[in-house]
Amino acid sequence: MIRTAVVGCGYWGPNLVRNFYEIPGSRLLICCDQNAQKLEPMQLRYPTVKCTTDFDEVLNSEADAVAIATPIRTHHELASRALRAGKHVFVEKPLAFSYQQCLELVEISERQGKVLMVGHTFEYNPAVRKLKEIVDRGEVGAVRYVYSSRVNLGQVRADENALWNLAPHDISIFLYLLGSVPVRISARGRGYLNPAIEDVAFLYMEFPSGVIAHTHVSWLDPSKIRKMTVVGSEKMVIYDDMDSEGKLRIYDKGVVDLGQVYGEFHVKLRAGDILIPKLDQREPLRIECEHFLECIRKGLRPQSDGLSGARVVRILEAAQISMREGGREIALDQVRQ
Amino acid sequence: MIRTAVVGCGYWGPNLVRNFYEIPGSRLLICCDQNAQKLEPMQLRYPTVKCTTDFDEVLNSEADAVAIATPIRTHHELASRALRAGKHVFVEKPLAFSYQQCLELVEISERQGKVLMVGHTFEYNPAVRKLKEIVDRGEVGAVRYVYSSRVNLGQVRADENALWNLAPHDISIFLYLLGSVPVRISARGRGYLNPAIEDVAFLYMEFPSGVIAHTHVSWLDPSKIRKMTVVGSEKMVIYDDMDSEGKLRIYDKGVVDLGQVYGEFHVKLRAGDILIPKLDQREPLRIECEHFLECIRKGLRPQSDGLSGARVVRILEAAQISMREGGREIALDQVRQ
Amino acid sequence: MIRTAVVGCGYWGPNLVRNFYEIPGSRLLICCDQNAQKLEPMQLRYPTVKCTTDFDEVLNSEADAVAIATPIRTHHELASRALRAGKHVFVEKPLAFSYQQCLELVEISERQGKVLMVGHTFEYNPAVRKLKEIVDRGEVGAVRYVYSSRVNLGQVRADENALWNLAPHDISIFLYLLGSVPVRISARGRGYLNPAIEDVAFLYMEFPSGVIAHTHVSWLDPSKIRKMTVVGSEKMVIYDDMDSEGKLRIYDKGVVDLGQVYGEFHVKLRAGDILIPKLDQREPLRIECEHFLECIRKGLRPQSDGLSGARVVRILEAAQISMREGGREIALDQVRQ
Amino acid sequence: MIRTAVVGCGYWGPNLVRNFYEIPGSRLLICCDQNAQKLEPMQLRYPTVKCTTDFDEVLNSEADAVAIATPIRTHHELASRALRAGKHVFVEKPLAFSYQQCLELVEISERQGKVLMVGHTFEYNPAVRKLKEIVDRGEVGAVRYVYSSRVNLGQVRADENALWNLAPHDISIFLYLLGSVPVRISARGRGYLNPAIEDVAFLYMEFPSGVIAHTHVSWLDPSKIRKMTVVGSEKMVIYDDMDSEGKLRIYDKGVVDLGQVYGEFHVKLRAGDILIPKLDQREPLRIECEHFLECIRKGLRPQSDGLSGARVVRILEAAQISMREGGREIALDQVRQ
Repeated sequence: MIRTAVVGCGYWGPNLVRNFYEIPGSRLLICCDQNAQKLEPMQLRYPTVKCTTDFDEVLNSEADAVAIATPIRTHHELASRALRAGKHVFVEKPLAFSYQQCLELVEISERQGKVLMVGHTFEYNPAVRKLKEIVDRGEVGAVRYVYSSRVNLGQVRADENALWNLAPHDISIFLYLLGSVPVRISARGRGYLNPAIEDVAFLYMEFPSGVIAHTHVSWLDPSKIRKMTVVGSEKMVIYDDMDSEGKLRIYDKGVVDLGQVYGEFHVKLRAGDILIPKLDQREPLRIECEHFLECIRKGLRPQSDGLSGARVVRILEAAQISMREGGREIALDQVRQ
Repeated sequence: MIRTAVVGCGYWGPNLVRNFYEIPGSRLLICCDQNAQKLEPMQLRYPTVKCTTDFDEVLNSEADAVAIATPIRTHHELASRALRAGKHVFVEKPLAFSYQQCLELVEISERQGKVLMVGHTFEYNPAVRKLKEIVDRGEVGAVRYVYSSRVNLGQVRADENALWNLAPHDISIFLYLLGSVPVRISARGRGYLNPAIEDVAFLYMEFPSGVIAHTHVSWLDPSKIRKMTVVGSEKMVIYDDMDSEGKLRIYDKGVVDLGQVYGEFHVKLRAGDILIPKLDQREPLRIECEHFLECIRKGLRPQSDGLSGARVVRILEAAQISMREGGREIALDQVRQ
Repeated sequence: MIRTAVVGCGYWGPNLVRNFYEIPGSRLLICCDQNAQKLEPMQLRYPTVKCTTDFDEVLNSEADAVAIATPIRTHHELASRALRAGKHVFVEKPLAFSYQQCLELVEISERQGKVLMVGHTFEYNPAVRKLKEIVDRGEVGAVRYVYSSRVNLGQVRADENALWNLAPHDISIFLYLLGSVPVRISARGRGYLNPAIEDVAFLYMEFPSGVIAHTHVSWLDPSKIRKMTVVGSEKMVIYDDMDSEGKLRIYDKGVVDLGQVYGEFHVKLRAGDILIPKLDQREPLRIECEHFLECIRKGLRPQSDGLSGARVVRILEAAQISMREGGREIALDQVRQ
Repeated sequence: MIRTAVVGCGYWGPNLVRNFYEIPGSRLLICCDQNAQKLEPMQLRYPTVKCTTDFDEVLNSEADAVAIATPIRTHHELASRALRAGKHVFVEKPLAFSYQQCLELVEISERQGKVLMVGHTFEYNPAVRKLKEIVDRGEVGAVRYVYSSRVNLGQVRADENALWNLAPHDISIFLYLLGSVPVRISARGRGYLNPAIEDVAFLYMEFPSGVIAHTHVSWLDPSKIRKMTVVGSEKMVIYDDMDSEGKLRIYDKGVVDLGQVYGEFHVKLRAGDILIPKLDQREPLRIECEHFLECIRKGLRPQSDGLSGARVVRILEAAQISMREGGREIALDQVRQ
C-alpha cells in the first residue's frame, strides 16, 4: 500500500484526488491547497482524508508519494522540495516553466532515487496507445505529417497562455508517436483578452525524418475540438477525442504514385474501408495513476519520466521565444540549458 | 443575349459550360479544350454547341465573353489574347501566376473597356455572403481571428501545389470578409508525393487591424473538410460547407472581461443560443456567372474584379516565397510588382 | 435538514445516493441493499453513511424520507411499508407493476399525509422543460404528432422487459408535454434473447386531440439513441439527448396549406432558421431530488406525483396486454382498476 | 442499341431521361408528359430528343422500351398499353395501385414476351447490395429484426399518401434482404394536411422466420432521415443513406447468452470494432437502368421483375386496409387477388 498526497485541488486536482482515493494500491492521506475553499468539497467527499493549506504538512507526513497539480510557476519549487523530503513525485504537465528547471528536477530525483513522473495523460490514453501501436507496426506506412486542434471556450488562465496550458498535450503525443524530437520549430500566437497572454497559438515543428507536425490551440473557440490526424503513406488515422462512436478512425486511403509518364507526374487515389477499432474504456488518468504507483512499487522509470517532461518543456520554451519574435524559426538545440 | 465561350473542359470547366448553357441571358456558342477527349462529353450533352481544340476559333468567333478554366500557367496568355480580341473575360482563380501578370491583365481590360472577372466563387456563395452581412452589421463584435481548413484526398495536381490550388478560396474569403489586405504573411508546406509540389501548406496572415488569419490546405487528408471559424468579441461563427443541416452556425458565445481585481485578471465565459440561419439555396457558381453577365450588360465592375484577383495572387506569391524560405515572414509590400 | 435513506444500490441507486449525500438540504443517513456487495462501494465512498442489508433498519431509522430504486416487482411492497412507517417516499419509475398497485400507494400516501413521488426524471430535465415551454406558448402551433426512439445495447434485464424498463420515460414525457392521456394504445414487441421478455417494442398511442405518439424501445441496438421529434403545424422540434452541441433544435419549418385549386390540393413547403437554445446545465436528477425535498419541506404535491406514476403504469399495462395479443388496440378506459 | 422513351417528366422522370440519354447502350428517342411545361427543360437540355404530350406517339414510335414515371394511378393503363404495343416496360415504384393490377401486368408481359421491370431502385443501390451480401454470408448471424425511417419535409403529394409514396422503398429492401414475404402486417397513419391522405405512417410486418420489420414514413419531418438498422445475433448493421462518410456501418456487437444460472437468465454484452466498408460509388439509378437494358438485350428476368413489384403492392394494399381500420392485423394471404 503506497501512501499518497495530492497538492492543488483547483480545476484538475480533484481528479487526482478521486483516483488516488479509489485505486486499491493507494491510501490517500492528505490533500493540500493554499486556498481553504478548494479543500471544502474534498473534506465533504472524503472525510477520512486530512486537508491542509500548509505544504509543510505534506512534506512531514507519512506520504510516500506526492502528486502536484498546482499552477505551473510553482511546479519546480514544490516538486524539488517534495523530492528532497524523500517523496516520489508526480507533477502535472508541463513539468516546469523552463528546460533548465526540468533538468534540475530530474537530477534531484536521480540523486534521491525517487520516481519523478510528469502527467502527460495522453500517453496513457487507450486511443493514443492504440494509435502508436498502429504506427509502430507500420500499418500507416511512413508517417508523412500530423496535425491537431485543441480548441474550446475557456479555461482562460491568467498566469499562463494557451500554448503552455494546452499544447503540452499535443507535443507529448507527437513525441510519443514519432519517437523523436523536432529539430526546428516556429510558433505564432496572439492575446486578445490580455495582450500579454496568448489565447490562440499555432505551432509548427519539423522532425529529423522530415515529418512535420502542426497544432492549433485556443481557448477562444465556439466548439470544443480535440482532434489529431496522422497522414501516412499507406493509411491515415483520425483521433477525435470528442467522437462518441469511436475515438479512432483508420482510413485505408492513400495516393498511389504511378511515376512519371512522358515527364508528367501521375498519381491515383485509393480509398478503401474505414475501421473504428474497439478501445479499452478505462479512464486514462486511472491508468496513469496506476502506472505511477507501479513504478514506485517496482522501481521502474515511468513512460512519461522527468526527461520526457523536459523534452516537452524545451519545445514550449522555444515556441514561446518564436511566438514573441514574430514566428522566427528556432533550431531546438539553440535552446539554452 | 450575351454570346459566350468556355475554354478548358477538364475538372471544373464543365460546370461553367453547364451554367453558361442554362442561364437564360447567355447563349453558349463554343467550347474549347486542347484535349479533344475532354470535348466528347460536352458534344454529347450539348450537341448545339460548337466544340474545338483551337483557341483561335474562340477568338475569331462571335462570342462576346470568354470564360477560362485552364491550368494556371496559361491564364495570363489566354486571358490577354481574349481581352485583346475584344472579349469580356472571366478567369478561374487564381487569376495568374504572378501579381505582375495580374496587373497587366487589369491594364489590358481597362484599355479595352472590357470586363475582367476572376472566379472567386466563394464571394458569391450565399453562406459567405450571409457571414459577411453578419460581420458587417457588427453582430460578432470586433473580429479577433479567423481560421480555416480546406483539406481532402486529391485532386493532386502535377503543375501547381496545394497552396495555389486550394488557398485562393480561403484568401479571397478572408479579404472579402475583412475588407482589407494582410500586412505580413508566413507559410509552411511540404511536398510528400513530389518534393517540388507542396501537398500540404499552412498559411498565416496578419491584418492591419491586428486580426490574424490562418489556413490549412492539403490534398493528402482522410476526410473532406471545408470549414472556417470567425471568432469575434461578441459572437463566433462557424461556416462548414460540408454540413448538410446548415452551413452557418452563429454562436452567442464569448468571454466577458471582468477587469483586474487586486492585480488579477478576471473573465467569465458566456454561452447562449446557437442559430443556424436559412440560406439561399442557389448554386454559387450560377450566381457568379449571372453576375459576370450582368456586369457585361450594365458596364459594372465585378465584385471579384481583376484587382481583387491581383490581391489574392500577391499573397500567394509571397506565401510561396515564405514557404520556400522556411517560413520567413514576408511584408506584403515587399512583393515586387 | 431532511434525513434521507436510499434503498437499492444497483445500477441507478448510486446516483440517488450521490445526490442525497451532496444536496445541502439533505442528510443521507442510510443506504440499503439486499446484496451486501452492492453496499461496499457506497461504504468506501461515503464512510459516514450507514449501510445495511435490512430494510427494517430503514423503516426504524430516523430518516424522514426514503428513495426506492429496487426492481419494479418490489416497489409496491417497499413503498407501502415505508409510507406506513411514516416516511415520505420517492420511487423510481415505473411506480409499480399495475395501475391498481399505484392507486393503492396514492391512497396510503394521502392517508398518511406523506409525499409520494415517482422518478420520472425527464420531467425535471431542462431540455424537456424548455420543450414544454415552447409547446405551451404555442410556438410550434398545434402539435400534430410526436415520436421517439430509446434504443441501445443493454441493460438487458431478466425481470422486466424493454417496454417496462425504457418506455416509462417516453410515456411520461408525452403526458407531460401534451397535458393529456391517450385514449387508445397498441403495442408490438418481441423477445429475442428470451421469448418471455421483450427486448424490442413499438408503442402507438392516440390522444383525444387526434395527436398520435409513437415510441420505439430496444436494448438490442448498435447505437445509443435518445431522440424525440415534435411535429407542429408551425414549427418542429427535435430533442436529442445525445447531441453534445445542443439537445434541442427548433426548426422553423412547415407546410403551408394553399387550399384547393380546381379541386386539387395545394401546399408549399416553408423552411427557415434552426435555433439551438441554451439550456440550464444542471443534472436533471439533482433538480428532481431537490424538488422532492422541497415538496416535503413545503407540503407540496410533486410534479410527478403518485397519480402521474399511475397514469404511466396504466398505459404500460395496456401496452403489455396489447403486445401479448398481437397488437390488439386497447381503449385505455378498459384497463381494469 | 436499344431505342428508349421516357413517359412522365415531373419530379423523378428527368433522372430517367438523363440516364437513358447518357448510357451508351441506349438511344433516347422520345420524352412524353401531359403537361407541356414539364417538357421545356427536357427540350432545352436534350435538343435531339423528341418531346410530346401525346402518349400515342410513344406507342407508335420506334422505341423498343418505355420507362414510365407518372402518378401511380396511371401506371396500370400506361404500362399495359405499352406492353400491348410490343414495348419492354420499366415502371417506377410502386408498380400499380393494386395487387390485381400488378398480376395483370405480369400476365401481359409474359404473353407478349416482353420485359416488365419495376423501379425498386434500392435493390440496385451498392449499399443495399453490400448489406445483402453481408446478411447472406451469415456475417450478422440470424437476423432478429430490422427497422427503418424514411422521413423528411415534402414532397407532399395530393394523389397518394406517404405510405404509397415512401414505403415501397423500405418494403422492397426488406423483401430483398430477407428473401421472404411477411405473413402478417399492421399499419397506423394519419393525414394532418388532408385527412384523406396520410402524411405519416408506421408499418409493422412479421416474417415467417419470426423476424419483425418496422418502418416509419413521413413527409412532415424537420430532418431528412433515410436509415435502416439490421439487428442480427452476431453483428448489427446501420445503413444510413445520408451519411457522407460511409453509408454502411457494421457493428461487431451483440449480447452473449450465458444461459440460466440458478434459474436466472444471464447475458453479457459484447462490443468490438466498427467497420465502414468502401462501396461502389456508381449512381444506383444508372445501375438499375443498365440492368433493364441488359435484361432486354439478353432476354433475362430483372432482379425487380413484375412479381417483385406485385409482392410490394400486395403489402401496401394490406397496409392501407389496416391503416384505415385502426391498425387491424392483416394476414397477407387474405389480400384478395
